[in-house]
Amino acid sequence: MNRTTIGIIGGMGPHAGIYLADRITAHTNAAGDSGHVSLQLASLPALIPDRTAFLFDRGAPDPSGAILEIASELVKSGCLVLGMPCNTAHAEPILAKVASGLAQRHPEARLFHLIDETAAFCAEAAPGARRIGLLATLGTYRDGMYERALTAQGLQPIIPDEAVQQNLIHRALYDADFGIKRQSSPVTEEAIELLSLAVEHLREAGAEAVILGCTELPLAIKGRTFAGLPVVDSTTALARALIRAAAPEKLAPLN
Amino acid sequence: MNRTTIGIIGGMGPHAGIYLADRITAHTNAAGDSGHVSLQLASLPALIPDRTAFLFDRGAPDPSGAILEIASELVKSGCLVLGMPCNTAHAEPILAKVASGLAQRHPEARLFHLIDETAAFCAEAAPGARRIGLLATLGTYRDGMYERALTAQGLQPIIPDEAVQQNLIHRALYDADFGIKRQSSPVTEEAIELLSLAVEHLREAGAEAVILGCTELPLAIKGRTFAGLPVVDSTTALARALIRAAAPEKLAPLN
Repeated sequence: MNRTTIGIIGGMGPHAGIYLADRITAHTNAAGDSGHVSLQLASLPALIPDRTAFLFDRGAPDPSGAILEIASELVKSGCLVLGMPCNTAHAEPILAKVASGLAQRHPEARLFHLIDETAAFCAEAAPGARRIGLLATLGTYRDGMYERALTAQGLQPIIPDEAVQQNLIHRALYDADFGIKRQSSPVTEEAIELLSLAVEHLREAGAEAVILGCTELPLAIKGRTFAGLPVVDSTTALARALIRAAAPEKLAPLN
Repeated sequence: MNRTTIGIIGGMGPHAGIYLADRITAHTNAAGDSGHVSLQLASLPALIPDRTAFLFDRGAPDPSGAILEIASELVKSGCLVLGMPCNTAHAEPILAKVASGLAQRHPEARLFHLIDETAAFCAEAAPGARRIGLLATLGTYRDGMYERALTAQGLQPIIPDEAVQQNLIHRALYDADFGIKRQSSPVTEEAIELLSLAVEHLREAGAEAVILGCTELPLAIKGRTFAGLPVVDSTTALARALIRAAAPEKLAPLN
């Protein structure tokens, strides 16, 4: 298998890995089948302990070991360019162990950083926007990873109030009846309504664009704008970074 | 990795492998991420010579060797239940070599047969339908694989006239300007119009349901019916067969 195969560490959740593969294909300029980039997706959800549960209770099973094993298997299969489409797994207590383990075992491989790529992608997806709102899981929210990444890009993070995070965003994702992680085909109207209210809150707080900082959110929010704001999809950001690394000449213009 | 991991031999085309992974996820009953079945997708399109080109010119590169290598790598990674979402690759001159090579190298693995599974799925997707129409590539059409599989299920194949196959179906898939293999995001109106005329032709010939016998067709034809006929999607048929083999208790009811 060739040196530019993209490896996707999937399963967190299953939709996210598949959606990244889909975005890689959609953002590739290829005349026919054989012009597309090579990729491998490992979606082994049962092996990976819940990321959010671990971040809130360090006594809970640590997902980093399983993630590192899956990444290693992908590298051994020829994938030197890796992406992990799970924002929550980029929290420091998880990512630090994965990244250092991978650097030690496979210095030849490169794991792209979903959050940094998303912050960098704002300039392309929402040109001119300086104040960037965030929709994410509680684990991502509490970690502060997007504040750091946006600030590093010279952008101003607009983070929801705790009440909005808990009552609108968290519920839209995790509600036992209507949450996206419960029902995604199709996503429920309740979930979309809560997200729409959350984005209105971010806009009132000054946001000029909104990051979809959870890989399940594009199941609910399709298109380039939502509730009046341009959307910056983290999975699309990662897809474009991976294509740029594996086959830069094949990266399609953003339209 | 566990014994029930599903392996997808993808890349033929890239959308088809991703769509199979998507259908597996959509047809799985799972309360959360970790309840989903494990799967691996190998999408290495540049390695696999064009299937249709080989079927029409046996001097052209034979794709079966590359397909067998990819299947072997998946088995070595722990995938004992395999699917190949490409109808054309199920033509005898290609499949025979893949299947016998795999049986020799890895008797522990099982490659599910897309065409047979689709014929069997008609009873579930279009209950009561006896005369089943076919939309497929020229390679699949000429091979006669669906006639054989449908007849084996006691169903009557309704195959398009040569003119309809060439001027409507082949063009909808392969036209250099508007064909689905050229433009799929979104599919062009011209392609959908040609397919709609082809299905009307099949209905006039007595078809009570129509098989989407090319894995790119669901990009154009979504939903359970098209141009007045119930749709039997070959990728969905394969997805359900793979779930049934890997984790039967997780197969969602068809709705």
